[in-house]
Amino acid sequence: MKNAVALARCASTIPTKLDAIMPITADFPARHIGPRKHDVRSMLKQMGFMSLDELTNAAVPDDIKLNRDLQIDQPLSEFELIKRIQSIADKNKIWRSYIGMGYYNTCIPHTILRNMFENPGWTTQYTPYQPEIAQGRLESLLNYQTMVTDLTGLEVANASLLDEGTAAAEALGLCFRVNKRRRFLLSDKLHPQTISCVETRAGPFGIKIEIVDVNNVDFSGKDIGGIIFQYPDTEGSIHDFTDVIKRAADNGTLTICATDLMALTILKPPGEFGVDIALGTSQRFGVPLGYGGPHAGFFATKNKYVRHMPGRMIGVTKDVDNHECFRLALQTREQHIRRDKATSNICTAQALLANISAMYAVYHGPQGLEDMARKIHNGTLLLAKGLSESGNVIENPMFFDTLKISPRLDQGEIKIRAQEININLRYFPDGCVGVSLDETVCQKDVKDLLWVFQCPKTIQQVAEGVTSPMYPEGSILSSNEFQRTSPYLTHPVFNTHHSETDMVRYMKRLENKDVSLVHSMIPLGSCTMKLNSTTEMMPCSFPGFTNLHPFAPPDQAYGYRHLFEELEQDLCEITGYDHISFQPNSGAQGEYAGLMAIMAYLESKGETKRNVCLIPLSAHGTNPASAQMAGMKVVPIKTAADGTVDMDDIRAKVVVHKEDLACLMITYPSTNGVFESTVSEICNLVHESGGQVYLDGANMNAQVGLCRPGDYGSDVSHLNLHKTFCIPHGGGGPGMGPIGVKAHLAPFLPSHPVISTGSATYMGKNAKPFGVVSAAPYGSAAILPISWAYIKMMGAKGLKRATQVAILNANYMSLRLSGHFKTLHKGKGNLVAHEFIIDCRDFKKTAGVEAVDIAKRLMDYGFHAPTMSWPVTGALMIEPTESEDKAELDRYCDALIHIRKEISDIETGRIDKLNNPVKRSPHTLKQIFSSNWDRPYTREEAAFPAPFVRSDSKLWPSVGRIDDSYGDKNLVCTCPPMEEYLSPYIVNEGSSG
Amino acid sequence: MKNAVALARCASTIPTKLDAIMPITADFPARHIGPRKHDVRSMLKQMGFMSLDELTNAAVPDDIKLNRDLQIDQPLSEFELIKRIQSIADKNKIWRSYIGMGYYNTCIPHTILRNMFENPGWTTQYTPYQPEIAQGRLESLLNYQTMVTDLTGLEVANASLLDEGTAAAEALGLCFRVNKRRRFLLSDKLHPQTISCVETRAGPFGIKIEIVDVNNVDFSGKDIGGIIFQYPDTEGSIHDFTDVIKRAADNGTLTICATDLMALTILKPPGEFGVDIALGTSQRFGVPLGYGGPHAGFFATKNKYVRHMPGRMIGVTKDVDNHECFRLALQTREQHIRRDKATSNICTAQALLANISAMYAVYHGPQGLEDMARKIHNGTLLLAKGLSESGNVIENPMFFDTLKISPRLDQGEIKIRAQEININLRYFPDGCVGVSLDETVCQKDVKDLLWVFQCPKTIQQVAEGVTSPMYPEGSILSSNEFQRTSPYLTHPVFNTHHSETDMVRYMKRLENKDVSLVHSMIPLGSCTMKLNSTTEMMPCSFPGFTNLHPFAPPDQAYGYRHLFEELEQDLCEITGYDHISFQPNSGAQGEYAGLMAIMAYLESKGETKRNVCLIPLSAHGTNPASAQMAGMKVVPIKTAADGTVDMDDIRAKVVVHKEDLACLMITYPSTNGVFESTVSEICNLVHESGGQVYLDGANMNAQVGLCRPGDYGSDVSHLNLHKTFCIPHGGGGPGMGPIGVKAHLAPFLPSHPVISTGSATYMGKNAKPFGVVSAAPYGSAAILPISWAYIKMMGAKGLKRATQVAILNANYMSLRLSGHFKTLHKGKGNLVAHEFIIDCRDFKKTAGVEAVDIAKRLMDYGFHAPTMSWPVTGALMIEPTESEDKAELDRYCDALIHIRKEISDIETGRIDKLNNPVKRSPHTLKQIFSSNWDRPYTREEAAFPAPFVRSDSKLWPSVGRIDDSYGDKNLVCTCPPMEEYLSPYIVNEGSSG
Repeated sequence: MKNAVALARCASTIPTKLDAIMPITADFPARHIGPRKHDVRSMLKQMGFMSLDELTNAAVPDDIKLNRDLQIDQPLSEFELIKRIQSIADKNKIWRSYIGMGYYNTCIPHTILRNMFENPGWTTQYTPYQPEIAQGRLESLLNYQTMVTDLTGLEVANASLLDEGTAAAEALGLCFRVNKRRRFLLSDKLHPQTISCVETRAGPFGIKIEIVDVNNVDFSGKDIGGIIFQYPDTEGSIHDFTDVIKRAADNGTLTICATDLMALTILKPPGEFGVDIALGTSQRFGVPLGYGGPHAGFFATKNKYVRHMPGRMIGVTKDVDNHECFRLALQTREQHIRRDKATSNICTAQALLANISAMYAVYHGPQGLEDMARKIHNGTLLLAKGLSESGNVIENPMFFDTLKISPRLDQGEIKIRAQEININLRYFPDGCVGVSLDETVCQKDVKDLLWVFQCPKTIQQVAEGVTSPMYPEGSILSSNEFQRTSPYLTHPVFNTHHSETDMVRYMKRLENKDVSLVHSMIPLGSCTMKLNSTTEMMPCSFPGFTNLHPFAPPDQAYGYRHLFEELEQDLCEITGYDHISFQPNSGAQGEYAGLMAIMAYLESKGETKRNVCLIPLSAHGTNPASAQMAGMKVVPIKTAADGTVDMDDIRAKVVVHKEDLACLMITYPSTNGVFESTVSEICNLVHESGGQVYLDGANMNAQVGLCRPGDYGSDVSHLNLHKTFCIPHGGGGPGMGPIGVKAHLAPFLPSHPVISTGSATYMGKNAKPFGVVSAAPYGSAAILPISWAYIKMMGAKGLKRATQVAILNANYMSLRLSGHFKTLHKGKGNLVAHEFIIDCRDFKKTAGVEAVDIAKRLMDYGFHAPTMSWPVTGALMIEPTESEDKAELDRYCDALIHIRKEISDIETGRIDKLNNPVKRSPHTLKQIFSSNWDRPYTREEAAFPAPFVRSDSKLWPSVGRIDDSYGDKNLVCTCPPMEEYLSPYIVNEGSSG
Repeated sequence: MKNAVALARCASTIPTKLDAIMPITADFPARHIGPRKHDVRSMLKQMGFMSLDELTNAAVPDDIKLNRDLQIDQPLSEFELIKRIQSIADKNKIWRSYIGMGYYNTCIPHTILRNMFENPGWTTQYTPYQPEIAQGRLESLLNYQTMVTDLTGLEVANASLLDEGTAAAEALGLCFRVNKRRRFLLSDKLHPQTISCVETRAGPFGIKIEIVDVNNVDFSGKDIGGIIFQYPDTEGSIHDFTDVIKRAADNGTLTICATDLMALTILKPPGEFGVDIALGTSQRFGVPLGYGGPHAGFFATKNKYVRHMPGRMIGVTKDVDNHECFRLALQTREQHIRRDKATSNICTAQALLANISAMYAVYHGPQGLEDMARKIHNGTLLLAKGLSESGNVIENPMFFDTLKISPRLDQGEIKIRAQEININLRYFPDGCVGVSLDETVCQKDVKDLLWVFQCPKTIQQVAEGVTSPMYPEGSILSSNEFQRTSPYLTHPVFNTHHSETDMVRYMKRLENKDVSLVHSMIPLGSCTMKLNSTTEMMPCSFPGFTNLHPFAPPDQAYGYRHLFEELEQDLCEITGYDHISFQPNSGAQGEYAGLMAIMAYLESKGETKRNVCLIPLSAHGTNPASAQMAGMKVVPIKTAADGTVDMDDIRAKVVVHKEDLACLMITYPSTNGVFESTVSEICNLVHESGGQVYLDGANMNAQVGLCRPGDYGSDVSHLNLHKTFCIPHGGGGPGMGPIGVKAHLAPFLPSHPVISTGSATYMGKNAKPFGVVSAAPYGSAAILPISWAYIKMMGAKGLKRATQVAILNANYMSLRLSGHFKTLHKGKGNLVAHEFIIDCRDFKKTAGVEAVDIAKRLMDYGFHAPTMSWPVTGALMIEPTESEDKAELDRYCDALIHIRKEISDIETGRIDKLNNPVKRSPHTLKQIFSSNWDRPYTREEAAFPAPFVRSDSKLWPSVGRIDDSYGDKNLVCTCPPMEEYLSPYIVNEGSSG
């Protein structure tokens, strides 16, 4: 009966005769979804189902089914979509913005734009957890770390954070972990969004934030955890912090300097002042404004704090053959191991953006960057000179690129003049005007700015008055105090690839070391590595989206607003929520924001005692880490023998915590890849005890079009747009984790100190935003067109079919593997959801083989491993997604089955327990071609274990199995001396030809 | 003294103080040119020069030096350039064009656009003359040939020609070669540009063209060489040619069908009617209009004519290990071997565009294409029905996508209504109106067209009247005569890669088999494989350039006109000519056009006896081939012992041919890579004898900014924009060969039957165009932004420096190789120009090693071979270009020096004469990893012969050395049955898991 209804619904839109003659072709769903119709039929048949509807009706519990079509616009074709989004982008007005405040115009070198940002070989890799097939981006991220340490003058940097604001919040966390003090100071000259982010983060920790004049602080109480100041500060001033730093250090206070990489190319670095931490954004190193993101935040510190460092860090280590190589270092700090004891809940970095900034430095080199900084600075000097010579007062005599001007004219008059020639400036409440220049500045820009301030002199006349162009008087360049003297970016990588030809080759060389979706499937359980289509990606390079400053007046951002509104509407329809906040920049940040909203809601009802967060043991490690950051007390819920939530335990816990229950965090379908039938009941239990339900949206790909969290009891979820909604993983970021909430939580969604967001935009005084979680008002706005486009091209039917095929693919693989591996958890009808876990725990006993061995052996087949040892230690979790076709699923299954046979051979003693292709995998080319092959199996068995592994297309692991512990024991997080990639002739120049 | 002048000139533009403070940074020259300043200094020092000016002053003969700066605009930065060209593109008005006539709107799948057209891995390869490192594009081109043979129903196709017009002209040539008859018929229903191209080509052969009604031809005289008709014809009609073909065949006349691939997906193919040749354009298979090009022309014929086929053909053969592989087949037909006896002078194909069209077919597959054709046809049916029901007369009752309408309203009124909603139609001189629909057609388009013709019925009402939507009455789909029944595109490659995920992987897999400029230098002598920068390429994807129909009214093409004018002005300044014609689509076509202009000029002066073309023996093979096509008699000039033109011989020949000398064709610097000092004298000699000078512009890269052909005596040159001016080679096209002429030749430049070009635009009746050489008025207009951008970003100084560094790089390599190889020819000051020849002829005697062995061995180093055995048999010609940096030059030299050592080892008997790394190269991965390695040298020596050949970045030859003769003896030019790339599970579906 249900099937009949479902089928009838599919045929509900009866096409007209005209439609039959000229069909409206929007065939994107058939491009996005891998298996062809005949494949789907054959796969269903093998599983005993007649239709996709029958399959998913069997898998999804009846009491949560949506039972109607989603109300989504008719799907657009790929070509219509580009027209549509172009017209939306055209609604944004792109003025010249000199607002600064952490966001600057920049020129992404076109060769980097095209060969990295617009190249799926660089955007579709996964986080480099499998370093043997990730050396390309690991090298690039190490370049990033080297760039940050060199420029800041500190010893160690991470591979990026989400943005400057959260980097500052992470610094607060680091200080607290180090000295446990609960007073924390912020300079009143920080960017306002930095202050807000730190304030919000401090609350739940019980840390008191004080906004201070940095030069006027008493550290002697020895109760101040840390102090953040900015250099150059938000108004452009450059101060000498030597004294503050000394006094702070003497009293055990950590010093943190928010700074600017471009300035540091000519400015004495904070490390040389002795600060403990430097942080900021690397946006202006080649990453477009994009209305606020995505950009990479950077974070550098002293060696002694390295184990407290938040985020990912690349380190140098050795492989099994003793070759130098790179991998993620010190992962033991991370939340997937330490859960609520982790240094941070942040999983997603901004790898792609960090890579772009690193390549920008590789492309320009130290001399190019210095020339650029000098041009920016000289332009600012000319402007300052011209302004002061005509009656304006420069409030910050020592500056790099930013002036705070007390103008001769009225601020309002200046604003009118600026608007007349489409220029945005910063307007301070005190009547002053701010101007920040950047690398795009040319003579005409300075001329126009002088005109805005009604200066009588021409720029030429101003220039004639400069006595020493290289070292202008009064400039940082002629200042002993501030002029940079230490070298930076001296490594060959920053001094070699300066022609475009060589730059392209360098980028390609790195790209071709890494497995990405352009090579083969990456069935990372819980990560949904689906197609990131070109059409979805194209708008991200539209100038109408990339060149807008996040603090431009809202009437210049109608295009973005239109996009946000449409996307919010569609996501609400898909999830059953009432409102969306686009501010959170990653899934983990979404969790944090969602929990903060819950806490604010409870507080508004006077229920301040409620602070317990129930979390099943199988949850994502970020869940407890986020709960801890939101000031909650984590209470774990047991898992039953079959992997489901232990209903008895939850019933008991809900009763025990009737008074202090804040919420439950739950993932659905469960982290075990199963549609548990009790989810609706669980939500009821929590609500009955006065708690809220946070549903982790990571597995939304199993639900779209079938069921909606908002319908069956959840109050809030984050949506990983980089999973379900097609934003590419970028090798470890960007991500985007907007949160959907039911109406009662909406007033508490985050706002922003510069541009109001969330309820502040429509509730006025009744808005009660809990705070701010990202530096930019709408997070990584520039990648939202991807998710918008996906929904618009799939339409209701396409979205549902994608979900159904994701479930089909997982069940098909589980079935094909069933004679060889045990699928650990199954739900209703013996079905899994969109992912499944194969049990590999016994192999350790029977053959000495662990999950990691299988993961490495898969590389010999050209495959990336599934998720390892999570949520079940020693098991592998496979999520094929709907985008992989049957042939690829079969190849992956073949590989696993073949590996299983090799394990059998070990079990039966047919091959050696240690010296076998599984334990010694992955096999590198270097090993294979060696004349001294001395293994008991052949080269062919090692490297070409299946007919589909072909010598003319195999992607080889570029290094052998990596020694993790060596790297952690011998931590090196900057570029090692370069192995010779050069002609011997170059090395011994002139010796001979 | 000269040096001092030159140096002073460089410093002539004294920057202002403002410029010193805020430099105008346009650093593209430093990105385009490989060696850094310090490298240039060190290289010059090794050669004993103080400066680049000193070097090139020494190399270039005094009497031809320019001795002044070029008058070119101040260079733009890459970002300014994009703004500038966008504003030019915006001047083009993009209306909906239903003009047809061989050009149709099409949707290039975005994934193909981004991953092929916008990807240097697909655009920067050379022609696949080295098949072992070109299997990717060879496979794709074989797909193209398979697609063309399948759709046309013929047995064999080539890998593309320049366009439909030249394909028709080539068909004329084929007929003439086959039956030597001098009457040739063209249907009056061919596209006008096809008629013009054939007429122009026929003239010099003395073939008489007659325009006829195809149904009314008497073949019985047995003197008609061939007949070309069109199906569907230019007015949209579909006729049954069975009878004509039979009568022609009975009388020895070849039948040629110009046709349309999209129509053939539902229309009975010409091969089934029995035609000898089918040709056309594959533009509408995914290649944008681009104001006329570049697009690929296709050409298919019967097996019996295969050795007469013009253009390149891909064939299947075997490698040394007996593996199936692909290569260029039957090269013995080509002009580089047969010179004036070649089947055609065409070198450049449209490989990149053919690849795009082939991928378009791979992406859509037969079902997708049929659906598309049905939609187009159904739209046309609806339109026809709507029109006839409201008093318009459809002149062609049997059609596919094109209608010729005798309208109820006046043609002028229709034009006004169409313009009102920005629609272009075809307006026939007889008052009829033409409408051609295409894959972009949607219901609204038909609705708008009905409105234009003032039809009272809505499209819905018209649709309701259709009785059988799948097989509408009167349609080709319900016609026994015309409905296609034979299958096509049945090969798995067209039925597998239909999801975007799989499509991307397929394109990447092919890309990664081929050496391109993204991997290493490709120092092809005479081919100038320099950087093709992203900034130059970006405008080629601007909709303002891509979406314009070539026959759109000129007032919609102001952007292109602006571009042409600026580029013409700059190219004239660079070459010293007065006018440029952009019509020729390749260098060879430029030669032909230039010689035709000379002949027309001579004829206009009454000098009709002049028909001798003097050509040095060392000339490009295309020179004699072109001269022959222009109706000239080729008289060779001897080469002196030192490789220069034999002055005695030329003096003698000029005297002998005083009465009949038409021209001299000469290459400068000479094909031997030397600035001969006699060039000016030679030009004088020719002029004194009443001849004209054609200077082959292939080596223009050695002259830009240093000397100008127009100054020292040349009358006409073609410019290979795909060499000197940065259009990428695309793996064998597109190219662009505009010709520059002195003023006296300008009136004779080509025009066009639809859109006037050349002198016809400004001389009115005094214009005397010799004819038409391309189907499109401005050849491949859509890639001209590349050359325009290059000049605009380089500026006068940058262009000159590029030339100087090109000369520096060549001389540096020659010097470094000097102890190991002999550079065959040198000029003044013992210098070469921008390329040089190393002598390898002795090695055959001393070691049994030939140039081809060195070429193949270079692949083991990851390098592409230089030009082999041209112009000197058994030698290698190396042209590094200015874009390669010193490190890469050194690596290439190291490789050659190491190979020379291996040759020495053979010479001294240290290693075996046959079983050695040189003779057995290139080494494939399959050979290397084999357990049965039984060679007397190690795997490491074979595959990693230098420290810079690294296992983590090596690009391997995907097959072993190719057996050319096997392939020519066993000619297969369509996709062979697929080797299994599949899971064994798929093959034996259901057998087991």
